[in-house]
Amino acid sequence: MSLIVQKYGGSSVADEDKIRHVARRIVETRRAGHDVVAVVSAMGKTTNNLLNMARSLAQNPSRRELDMLLACGERISMSLLSMTIQELGEECISLTGPQSGIRTTDNHFNARITDVKAGRVEREIERGRIVVVAGYQGMNSRGEVTTLGRGGSDTTAVAVAAGIKADRCEIYSDVDGVYTADPRIVDAARPMPEVSYVEMTELAHHGASVLNPRAVEYAWKRQVEVRARCTFNDAPGTVIHERDAEGDPRVLGVACHKELIWVSLRGKDVLEKLGDDVLEAIGKNDIFVDSISENGDRRDLLIATEDIANLDSFADGLRKDFDGQVAVSTEQGSVSGVGLNIGQDADVVAQAEKALEKAGIEVRMSVSRDHSITCLVDAPQVGDALRALHSCFLEDSKQSREVA
Amino acid sequence: MSLIVQKYGGSSVADEDKIRHVARRIVETRRAGHDVVAVVSAMGKTTNNLLNMARSLAQNPSRRELDMLLACGERISMSLLSMTIQELGEECISLTGPQSGIRTTDNHFNARITDVKAGRVEREIERGRIVVVAGYQGMNSRGEVTTLGRGGSDTTAVAVAAGIKADRCEIYSDVDGVYTADPRIVDAARPMPEVSYVEMTELAHHGASVLNPRAVEYAWKRQVEVRARCTFNDAPGTVIHERDAEGDPRVLGVACHKELIWVSLRGKDVLEKLGDDVLEAIGKNDIFVDSISENGDRRDLLIATEDIANLDSFADGLRKDFDGQVAVSTEQGSVSGVGLNIGQDADVVAQAEKALEKAGIEVRMSVSRDHSITCLVDAPQVGDALRALHSCFLEDSKQSREVA
Repeated sequence: MSLIVQKYGGSSVADEDKIRHVARRIVETRRAGHDVVAVVSAMGKTTNNLLNMARSLAQNPSRRELDMLLACGERISMSLLSMTIQELGEECISLTGPQSGIRTTDNHFNARITDVKAGRVEREIERGRIVVVAGYQGMNSRGEVTTLGRGGSDTTAVAVAAGIKADRCEIYSDVDGVYTADPRIVDAARPMPEVSYVEMTELAHHGASVLNPRAVEYAWKRQVEVRARCTFNDAPGTVIHERDAEGDPRVLGVACHKELIWVSLRGKDVLEKLGDDVLEAIGKNDIFVDSISENGDRRDLLIATEDIANLDSFADGLRKDFDGQVAVSTEQGSVSGVGLNIGQDADVVAQAEKALEKAGIEVRMSVSRDHSITCLVDAPQVGDALRALHSCFLEDSKQSREVA
Repeated sequence: MSLIVQKYGGSSVADEDKIRHVARRIVETRRAGHDVVAVVSAMGKTTNNLLNMARSLAQNPSRRELDMLLACGERISMSLLSMTIQELGEECISLTGPQSGIRTTDNHFNARITDVKAGRVEREIERGRIVVVAGYQGMNSRGEVTTLGRGGSDTTAVAVAAGIKADRCEIYSDVDGVYTADPRIVDAARPMPEVSYVEMTELAHHGASVLNPRAVEYAWKRQVEVRARCTFNDAPGTVIHERDAEGDPRVLGVACHKELIWVSLRGKDVLEKLGDDVLEAIGKNDIFVDSISENGDRRDLLIATEDIANLDSFADGLRKDFDGQVAVSTEQGSVSGVGLNIGQDADVVAQAEKALEKAGIEVRMSVSRDHSITCLVDAPQVGDALRALHSCFLEDSKQSREVA
């Protein structure tokens, strides 16, 4: 008998039929003799619909009010899932983020989990109940509802798993785990049986959307073994855990950002005068900087655009604020190779650049880190670039990892 | 400078444009120098949509889970309204039922307000903020979210008004106050400038849907003066307050139930053997009995059908349980005249019966109470019967009340 946390994403509970399917899956796990805590996201497009409604009513809606609003999405799906499980004959109770003891930092709309006071969840499990927890939300020190930012339900699942010392934490979505590349772009992509925390963090940062990077970091810090699985089949999925590098550095997977903003500052004067201001201007928009590369008197910033409501006005704002002294380029994308220690291996870096060149893709800039190589390319070429990297590193039998 | 509670119903906040309109109305009240607490219902059909989704997933969903689910409807509209008010430049904060200190009885899905701990609302008002409160919900002694039953947001508004000692409590809907009859049925119906608590309670019980009967009872008990007004114009609406009877009893307004179940027990044996069982069978379904009439060895129950999810199966259940010894008749409706002391005035009762007879309507049963006369008629004749009563009592200049 194990204690299992299962997290079901929005596409897994997008309609009544899918909620029934998820309920059956949870009940099967329960009847196999396990205790189950299910963490659930909002149904399908609910969060986006609520956000769009808010943005049609207020240009810059209060984040406290936004959090109150968005938290309803997961509360709706948690109640529906709980009553469906009860209908199948199992004892079940749903708990909101605050009721589940998820404590967060104060900042609304992008809070981080600071602690999980798991008493209530544990008591309900002891009473023999399945517990359904609303993902993506918690409560701050002022007793207000907060939300955890995009993909926050993954973090809820990992944090609850750490808090109740679960034996397993399974993150369900509509794909069979973590792939060597996005299978919608690369036909030859295949699921990986295991990934280390550090590699998964890099893949997520560089655009792999299966798992939220913060959730992976949380799992890493608390050493929670996470399994990414598909809601709609019984494939084993991908285990994310601690793993040491063995043998030569090699590329484990590739990922991409279809759209980035590239901000570049050139020359010592500009850097000294404006360097901090640019970072501040970006920071005050609460936007995540994907990578910063410094090289002598130039600094390049790559900014992922997923969280920017109005990309063009954001870019124009930067251009205007810095009066043409800073180059701001949209229509950019990136492709990255990820693997333990590959960034320090000149051979791997050279192979990547050669593969892209051979495919006729101009690399505008490249950044190597410990466990990743990232190449900036024109947005329309991202697909071709990703396929070229995948073909180079992951379709050649010599390079491909053995299946564990 | 007054302290004003304004309640806006679901049709007043049914879409973004209407939310903007309500926000402007609240801001105007604020800018006229008043403190405002706005109580808000769920947008349009939200509650019904959530309820239908729940019922498609579970035959008899847990009421605790239902309350968690339905409470989201008002939380969505409160957040959206609050951010829209902020967009107009006023300080505003939204509070859920529990945050607003609404304490209720334990029973889920049909809880009653026991107390309002108004400290948080008062503090926010003192800080100069408009407060938006989610209607229809509260928290029970176990700290769980409860809902107040159909029309519960009216009760929230009255209870908050009593709790913060508001100077005014305005209930907004899409009609100009309380009419002498439902204007969708009776063309000649007109808004009444004032109604007493007891008359409003009777009108509401007998089918007038402008104000929830529990809300009126709460207002009566706490002596909160309520004004029913229209969201979309500046008509003065109807004041509901303490009012003494003056002069001869007269009919103030008429109301109807388009659909009722009529349960009748005939004979001393049946009454003794089954009387209590029938009441229990109805009670366990949490259904409101509109009126019970005892007359020698017969008892008649009229049951409003608004809260019955499946009317036919409910009626069939009663018939089967009591093996044909109890007559259960659907397809019934009722029309009622309401006015202080009219039930004790033989002349008024006779006039009502004559008016219906003249209109060719068969009265299957009639019940007179202190302040009402109710006639049971076939469901298809409800409209004609209501028009006949209205014409008899409220379109004759001698009988019609003077405008105050």
